[in-house]
Amino acid sequence: MIDRLLAMLEEHRDGYLSGEQISRQLGVSRTAVWKHIRALKKRGYEFEAVPSRGYRLKSGPELFQPERFHAALATRAFGRRLIYLERTGSTQTVAHERYAAGDGEGTVVLAEEQTAGKGRMGRSWHSPRGKGLWFTLLLEPRISVRAAPQLTYVLSVAVCRAIRRATGLAAAIKWPNDIWIDGKKVCGILLESAAEDDRLKYVAAGIGIDVNVDRSEWPAEIADRATSLRAAAGRPFERERLLADCLLELEFWYHHFLKEGFPGVRTVWESLCETIGRTVRLGTGTASIAGVAVGMDDEGALLVRRDDGTIDRVVSGDIEHSMGCAFR
Amino acid sequence: MIDRLLAMLEEHRDGYLSGEQISRQLGVSRTAVWKHIRALKKRGYEFEAVPSRGYRLKSGPELFQPERFHAALATRAFGRRLIYLERTGSTQTVAHERYAAGDGEGTVVLAEEQTAGKGRMGRSWHSPRGKGLWFTLLLEPRISVRAAPQLTYVLSVAVCRAIRRATGLAAAIKWPNDIWIDGKKVCGILLESAAEDDRLKYVAAGIGIDVNVDRSEWPAEIADRATSLRAAAGRPFERERLLADCLLELEFWYHHFLKEGFPGVRTVWESLCETIGRTVRLGTGTASIAGVAVGMDDEGALLVRRDDGTIDRVVSGDIEHSMGCAFR
Repeated sequence: MIDRLLAMLEEHRDGYLSGEQISRQLGVSRTAVWKHIRALKKRGYEFEAVPSRGYRLKSGPELFQPERFHAALATRAFGRRLIYLERTGSTQTVAHERYAAGDGEGTVVLAEEQTAGKGRMGRSWHSPRGKGLWFTLLLEPRISVRAAPQLTYVLSVAVCRAIRRATGLAAAIKWPNDIWIDGKKVCGILLESAAEDDRLKYVAAGIGIDVNVDRSEWPAEIADRATSLRAAAGRPFERERLLADCLLELEFWYHHFLKEGFPGVRTVWESLCETIGRTVRLGTGTASIAGVAVGMDDEGALLVRRDDGTIDRVVSGDIEHSMGCAFR
Repeated sequence: MIDRLLAMLEEHRDGYLSGEQISRQLGVSRTAVWKHIRALKKRGYEFEAVPSRGYRLKSGPELFQPERFHAALATRAFGRRLIYLERTGSTQTVAHERYAAGDGEGTVVLAEEQTAGKGRMGRSWHSPRGKGLWFTLLLEPRISVRAAPQLTYVLSVAVCRAIRRATGLAAAIKWPNDIWIDGKKVCGILLESAAEDDRLKYVAAGIGIDVNVDRSEWPAEIADRATSLRAAAGRPFERERLLADCLLELEFWYHHFLKEGFPGVRTVWESLCETIGRTVRLGTGTASIAGVAVGMDDEGALLVRRDDGTIDRVVSGDIEHSMGCAFR
């Protein structure tokens, strides 16, 4: 019904359609027409409404243009297969289904809007319509499950570098794999992997970048910790080009890692990571560790030096507090 | 139709049912009745057929009795929830679905027969009806993906010990996680795991034990490398009790590993493993390594000493050849 209304309005973009005309043609009440117009406004459509003449569609929401994306894409494989969805629960869930259905490495699932976006540690991820890049990249690395944690850093290095190049903003990594700008989170990365014995079968790498989200759009509970590229730079960014840039960096760092191993990735990760050199307190789920983050070891564990000089290896967790640091 | 025939025969176990009676009551031809009787024979049912009187059901196939299993079960949690299926594609697939539907740690999916049983490295697993224990155990260990390979050894230690205790046979482990008797394979273990970043979410541990399979039942291509507990011991075993024994050992070693770590498991694994001390050639998928298997390190890698004295750490692969050894 709302689709038929939209089609009518699109057809008459150069004139006005009265509520009566619409209600007659669609066979619904004028109150129903008004309700649908309101629903479309919520979805980002803008109208001119003149009392005596009716409604005119001024502009639609800026939806992602797959054609524009493919024109900008310079990768060999990543993103060549794009599954574009206007709205879904979580691109992670869709990616798992697509893998089971036969889609393979490099496939990207992108949603204009997620109604149940997933964050790390069972958290949800706010994914408003048309404003971000909410996507999942399928990978099939022939590596041991032991190397899976290293893969997380490969992805954060790639996305952080892509954001820096595309926007000029001073994006930095917050251990383990968030990307922050000006002390606020702009991107989260979540890896879900499946393994058979010692070997990874596939990885669904979920990446969420707040591209053009307005300050006013964040839920109150995350508003003081969240930012977007638009909020940080004071201008919007073209999502199609940014996704193409991200995938190019992702493809480069992924193959670099598979071919050359972790040392190169680790060095670049340390240079991009604001956590290194800071006094931090980390929560590991079962314990809290305080000290100075001094680096990362060969296996991808964060090294934290306590006051007494002992070094803790921390393989997973969250930063609870960071002294004199941009991470609040 | 075949179910209604079976119900009729079960009802008249103390007398005979003529082909005519059956065909009249079920509304099918006598040829159809005869075909269904033949199909039931194939499924392990035995009949007395007297020309003038008809058919009498003598005995059904020896199906797994969940009640008998529950009576024998002494675990705290493992196997308390048993999903028993007469026939399925793969218990692994069912277990993944059950996890998604809310079933948790300790749930066991057991099938009387698998039509598409899974082995390691994409191989199939021969799972004839009523003759083995083809099951999957769901686990939700709160450990790093780095420790997942160690979990494989935890399971093979537990199952090897359970088989030894229940049968008195000299079962031994073949690296990485098969169980062999008299130079032939009697049990395979396959771990499929799902992780989120560094943390395991759950593991579907597939375990297949050839309990009462007859020599004549193996496909030609595996007949010289396969055995069953019955073939090795010269007597059949009660599957319900054996599964209860396995789950008790599995529960013990699993919690021992979670609480005390890997060293204890590793020591017992080395003592049960016939690979240790042998000259072996291993295929790792990309390379072939020859030398003497001298032990396992703290992370679960097999240590192989080459002729020149250097030690290789092998994290995954298969034994291609073993000198002067029971593994053919």
